[in-house]
Amino acid sequence: MSSDNLSGAVNQQERLDAYIAGFVDGEGSFHVAVQRNPTCKLGWQLLPEFHVSQHPDRRQVLDLIQVRLGCGRLQENHRGSKDTTLVFVVRKRIDLLERVIPFFEAQPLVSSKQEDFIRFAHIVRRMDDGQHLFADGFDELRRVALSTNGGGRYRRVHRIDPESSETIRRTPAQGW
Amino acid sequence: MSSDNLSGAVNQQERLDAYIAGFVDGEGSFHVAVQRNPTCKLGWQLLPEFHVSQHPDRRQVLDLIQVRLGCGRLQENHRGSKDTTLVFVVRKRIDLLERVIPFFEAQPLVSSKQEDFIRFAHIVRRMDDGQHLFADGFDELRRVALSTNGGGRYRRVHRIDPESSETIRRTPAQGW
Repeated sequence: MSSDNLSGAVNQQERLDAYIAGFVDGEGSFHVAVQRNPTCKLGWQLLPEFHVSQHPDRRQVLDLIQVRLGCGRLQENHRGSKDTTLVFVVRKRIDLLERVIPFFEAQPLVSSKQEDFIRFAHIVRRMDDGQHLFADGFDELRRVALSTNGGGRYRRVHRIDPESSETIRRTPAQGW
Repeated sequence: MSSDNLSGAVNQQERLDAYIAGFVDGEGSFHVAVQRNPTCKLGWQLLPEFHVSQHPDRRQVLDLIQVRLGCGRLQENHRGSKDTTLVFVVRKRIDLLERVIPFFEAQPLVSSKQEDFIRFAHIVRRMDDGQHLFADGFDELRRVALSTNGGGRYRRVHRIDPESSETIRRTPAQGW
């Protein structure tokens, strides 16, 4: 490959990465669910998740993001319902740490969603250090988690009922 | 400015343009409304509009798009209702022809929304040639318009009632 071609390919990759960042600024979410789980030592767990939603007619960008990040999977938003929205989801911590977070550190978002990303990256890295395994550390991360995703106004705490396997939604005021 | 700095600025502009294109692929719309209007010679009119919606907490990208395109305006989606969504809107034909269309020709969309854009650009250019002022020409452009925005499944024809100033929504089957 000549240096011109190589330079062109680098520029093309940079444009593609910027395109993905722009798409994610609109359609993506850096979300940390706070779930009750009696099998965890503290009775609760943090579940960080990066996801991007789209109508299945326009799944091309989700495919592109999956290939570029080299991780995650595509799934229907609500199986069995009339909602056919497709969602690209990354939940594995190693993928969040080594692929998703470095990508968006190199491609910062323009909107205030960037603040969600910064909190998300903080939580995932502290979880990798094991901070969430101790009550004080968990509590700090939980507070950070509840301040993301729209400033907490629409934030709900999910509780998994071990008897029925249902997920029960509670507002923070009810749950804590 | 040194050649390195100039090259960096060009790359930065290219990245920004790609970012905007990615955002618009998710949140933007190239829409042509077909409206009844008795003051028009044919009784109907075509109203092309480029718009991008966003929650007001994340208006930064809308501001960026407005500055980059150098046209259009920001408005609330539904004045007076609880929906506070902000919308960046471009309706002036000269702005669509000289700013919006050239921008997205240089920054093609990845998803199938690109097909909507191509039809949109075709309609706006043919309207600039005056094709919509004659029955046959209008009919061809109307068919193209109705095939955009989700393949026509959710497409509605808007009729302006001159007595009440209300906009009445009709399905194509009712309207044509």
